[in-house]
Amino acid sequence: MTAHTIDVDAAVVEDHVMRLARHGAWGETGVWRTVYSPEWVAAQDEVAEWFDAAGFEVWRDAVGNVWGRIEGADGSPGSIATGSHIDSQTPGGRYDGALGVISGYLAVKSLVEQHGRPQRTLEVVSMCEEESSRFAATNFWGSRGIAGMIKPHEPDELISYDGQRMSDIMRELGLDPARIPEAKRDDINAWVELHIEQGPLLETAGRPVAVVDAITGIRHYEVTITGRSDHAGARPIDDRRDPMHGAAEIISRVIDTALEMGRPAVTTVGRMQVDPNFPAIVPRSVTFTIDARHPDPDARNALYRRHEATLEEVCTRRGLDLSVKINTDHPPCLSNPDLVRTFQEAARAEDIPFETMPSGAAHDTQRIVNVAPVVMLFVQSKDGRSHTPEEYSYPEHMAEGVRLLAAGLHRLAY
Amino acid sequence: MTAHTIDVDAAVVEDHVMRLARHGAWGETGVWRTVYSPEWVAAQDEVAEWFDAAGFEVWRDAVGNVWGRIEGADGSPGSIATGSHIDSQTPGGRYDGALGVISGYLAVKSLVEQHGRPQRTLEVVSMCEEESSRFAATNFWGSRGIAGMIKPHEPDELISYDGQRMSDIMRELGLDPARIPEAKRDDINAWVELHIEQGPLLETAGRPVAVVDAITGIRHYEVTITGRSDHAGARPIDDRRDPMHGAAEIISRVIDTALEMGRPAVTTVGRMQVDPNFPAIVPRSVTFTIDARHPDPDARNALYRRHEATLEEVCTRRGLDLSVKINTDHPPCLSNPDLVRTFQEAARAEDIPFETMPSGAAHDTQRIVNVAPVVMLFVQSKDGRSHTPEEYSYPEHMAEGVRLLAAGLHRLAY
Repeated sequence: MTAHTIDVDAAVVEDHVMRLARHGAWGETGVWRTVYSPEWVAAQDEVAEWFDAAGFEVWRDAVGNVWGRIEGADGSPGSIATGSHIDSQTPGGRYDGALGVISGYLAVKSLVEQHGRPQRTLEVVSMCEEESSRFAATNFWGSRGIAGMIKPHEPDELISYDGQRMSDIMRELGLDPARIPEAKRDDINAWVELHIEQGPLLETAGRPVAVVDAITGIRHYEVTITGRSDHAGARPIDDRRDPMHGAAEIISRVIDTALEMGRPAVTTVGRMQVDPNFPAIVPRSVTFTIDARHPDPDARNALYRRHEATLEEVCTRRGLDLSVKINTDHPPCLSNPDLVRTFQEAARAEDIPFETMPSGAAHDTQRIVNVAPVVMLFVQSKDGRSHTPEEYSYPEHMAEGVRLLAAGLHRLAY
Repeated sequence: MTAHTIDVDAAVVEDHVMRLARHGAWGETGVWRTVYSPEWVAAQDEVAEWFDAAGFEVWRDAVGNVWGRIEGADGSPGSIATGSHIDSQTPGGRYDGALGVISGYLAVKSLVEQHGRPQRTLEVVSMCEEESSRFAATNFWGSRGIAGMIKPHEPDELISYDGQRMSDIMRELGLDPARIPEAKRDDINAWVELHIEQGPLLETAGRPVAVVDAITGIRHYEVTITGRSDHAGARPIDDRRDPMHGAAEIISRVIDTALEMGRPAVTTVGRMQVDPNFPAIVPRSVTFTIDARHPDPDARNALYRRHEATLEEVCTRRGLDLSVKINTDHPPCLSNPDLVRTFQEAARAEDIPFETMPSGAAHDTQRIVNVAPVVMLFVQSKDGRSHTPEEYSYPEHMAEGVRLLAAGLHRLAY
């Protein structure tokens, strides 16, 4: 018999998921909850009520992150913190982000109920924004606030997809953009974020949870290939500078490159715009994105070098003009080895089957790593789906996630 | 010494091009003149004035085509007709369409001035619409009116890009949509349309003009490939059903197929839409067009069979769902061999260097072939450009076109 640090009722976890999902409910199973929207305010208010009812000290920081705190008995400085983001894709599902807030709340609440006051301070945070679903470039507003990475000019420059200014939106909610630097924390001794996997690996492996040892490095290229627009009938096929023909070869080859390198390399071309985009006109230019990821720093560089060589080679050979911008470039975020070990040992002690794996998705944690040692936990996603109303995690898997989170926090704070 | 049927001053031709180009002038050298717009009304009014001043009998038919007529002396039924369209791309250039109207006017005016009244009736027409630049599906409104191909429901169903109904627009100009059938002609004994080439072949060959022996067959496929949308980071590269990867292979291969078949086969992918079109999401579906053309009926069928086999093979192998619609399917339009011979002989007699070639572009003539024997003439396009303000034809080449048109009409009508 293994000892359980805490007991968790899977139905209680699912009930909390459903309660948060009412705020911005979209269709049968979706959620549409963008940062600072009325639905978002209602969700953060409900989280604050949960924290308050559980006896946490509650406050909101300068970007609207909601914090709950249980002061440690030993009076030592700093805290052990957990949490995730409360906003969603448009539409997203019920689990992405929200499950990390709920799991943190239930884990800390259960620890206090079942083990009393911790030695070291525990904190849970419901972060305001991660998805960039209202503004293109918020770029993890909540965790950038915590890490002190929001620049003073940003609130006046960020414009939402529907044309509103970030600073105006914040002021309407009583948040003063000038005070954003006050959200910065430099007293977090350990950070752990629980999140759904968003991929199929845990389902394939038959494991409910994972300890995440790295978050992948991500680079987004924006590639524009320019040729010569021509009449689709009158310009002979052998006398064209057709950027679509070049783009098709490049797209085939960069995805093939990731296939050749194998897991965990991934390359995605998710966005394309054609100018002028008429059936009977050879395009003047084709613009597309290349999203390429690898959690290993050396392999990542090799992947990027091969992609860049493909772009150059194809465009030179075909006489096409090439323009490449790098819009996003996150280095891999490595988890703290001690924290990885702590949660691996906790899983073994609790008899929770787990994987150790990198995250192919980006997360708030890769901002918080700038101010604290970090680790992440994953909970299995059914069919590997996320960023869709169809995303789903089984209650028993979520409960195992809460148990593992609590067991690790217990090792760190008690 | 060869005898010139008529003398043509290149400066006069160019002057008429510039005069028409004022109506809807766009930027330095462009024209933006959509059907039934104020600019279009002004252009048709000017053409009607030219016709009237030259002693042509002028009238406007039920779709707004402006006709000018010189009654033949022998009283035989029917007429020899020439002309082209007055509308433009948005923006287009000064020559596409307009040059055929101007050349018809100058050729018939010069014939009457220099040779007197013809035996058979001559007509010149400035057709209202060919470019589909105001409505997506007018589909050659002017020549479909002449061929009696406009269906009764169309004027109420066609909606312009800016949301206006065709029937309302026509009524505002005093055109009664119910009378469109009256525009049909069944008394045209021969039709010839002069047009710019829109491609580079005459320039490469160093010839000012061509006699067109066929208009290419055109098929527009609208292809939708559906896979599974996935997170760009969390779904392993080898476990995707990525429609972009399949589309890229297909686009490469269909264009390669046209290259292998060689001239005059052409295949163009000019339009693509990606769903949902985000950099970090593997697309759910990719929709693109394939425009494939060949003037030879057998080669055309072979081209289409190879494209369709590629679509099937790639999607089956990759486990992608394939949906194919054929939005446009014009068979090749063959010129009347007697008319081709008449214009070839006229060119030789006039000592005008010419090519005999198919048209890779679509033209009004492929509608008029339903009610009359047809032929077309091309005038060289500088750099093969068209559908752009940069299109240009040299005055001396245009003058050779007018001379050839007049010489052929002389053989047919005198």
